[in-house]
Amino acid sequence: MVKVRLASRILEANEKIAERNRKFFQDKGIFVINLMSSPGSGKTSILERTISRLSGETPLAVIEGDIYTSQDAERIEQKGAPVVQINTSGACHLDAHMVEEALGDLDLDKIKLLVIENVGNLVCPAEFDLGEDAKVAVLSTTEGNDKPMKYPLVFRQSQAVLVNKIDLLAHTDFDLDVLRRDVHLINPELKIFEVSARTNEGFEPWCQWLAEQVRNKAAAV
Amino acid sequence: MVKVRLASRILEANEKIAERNRKFFQDKGIFVINLMSSPGSGKTSILERTISRLSGETPLAVIEGDIYTSQDAERIEQKGAPVVQINTSGACHLDAHMVEEALGDLDLDKIKLLVIENVGNLVCPAEFDLGEDAKVAVLSTTEGNDKPMKYPLVFRQSQAVLVNKIDLLAHTDFDLDVLRRDVHLINPELKIFEVSARTNEGFEPWCQWLAEQVRNKAAAV
Repeated sequence: MVKVRLASRILEANEKIAERNRKFFQDKGIFVINLMSSPGSGKTSILERTISRLSGETPLAVIEGDIYTSQDAERIEQKGAPVVQINTSGACHLDAHMVEEALGDLDLDKIKLLVIENVGNLVCPAEFDLGEDAKVAVLSTTEGNDKPMKYPLVFRQSQAVLVNKIDLLAHTDFDLDVLRRDVHLINPELKIFEVSARTNEGFEPWCQWLAEQVRNKAAAV
Repeated sequence: MVKVRLASRILEANEKIAERNRKFFQDKGIFVINLMSSPGSGKTSILERTISRLSGETPLAVIEGDIYTSQDAERIEQKGAPVVQINTSGACHLDAHMVEEALGDLDLDKIKLLVIENVGNLVCPAEFDLGEDAKVAVLSTTEGNDKPMKYPLVFRQSQAVLVNKIDLLAHTDFDLDVLRRDVHLINPELKIFEVSARTNEGFEPWCQWLAEQVRNKAAAV
């Protein structure tokens, strides 16, 4: 019981800071996504492609969450996007306070899109609101189509899922029909984008959807 | 600080129960592995192949950890191995108490090998000792060779790593030399087995190593 009560206190404290972050993003008209997946699903590669496609028209910045390294932030920097690295030092997810601290290291006055890449983990990150507008999940075809039923929370909370490594589909037993059925049982509104960060396949519909969300948010200020 | 102190209390309480589990396994001469990986790396498929290869000579049982479903336990049952499902109801890892409870549901008098398949998560499970003899990590080629450096704890604590989906190697940018270098920087003693649960490639060395550990443990009673 102590454990449960403490967990709920931690989540309540997180929610308060997430609301502060949300108000900050609202005032600036910045659309924020919280990108979540298992390790190795391709979050950073997807982000590299998305930056290449969008950065000309949509000023964006990135917060990179990782347990120890800054490898992913270095990859994003090479794409020319402003990036801040958060190292969680062992923690399995980002929380709203870590994001709030990182915001001070970014010049956000001209930014319209902020992507927060969470720690690679399909379980814990979904429990922590960061103040984002949309959670986006990545699932790669090589992980198997049973993952939404086994890890439903992240798919229930997301607005979009990118099914990555679609170029490897023929080499796997991944069943796209079962995947579509299962994610829509969990979350009927979930947008599904089939992409390959390796071949660039499927990035146009995803980037158009994302750009539209950014425009809508900026217009609402 | 409260959070850190509570976390250390939880880990201490876990360690006491893990020691009880370890003594129980010792008295019975059962070799126990704690199988850990990201979601979708192929733990259950590897286990199916391992059961097919070993169950004739090595009496074995399985504890399946999952957040909500019993899909994996059903797959193991079809292979003819005694299996107990633990549902963690949201928790991102197994702990020693969950395993202790599950032991009561298995007839372990004739068992020489117990495989505990942890929740799919490359971060949290590594922090919780279950009383096992060996942690075994699975990493699939489609996840990328940067994972040991990004999630070092699980690789530091493991005795063996199975590099799965070796049949897909040519379709990925996975660099086996970098992987070998990195895991041996983290853990010079780590055994590396290259396997494909899809094609059965590479299972003989892994199963021979495992059978040898089982014989050594049984002989020590």
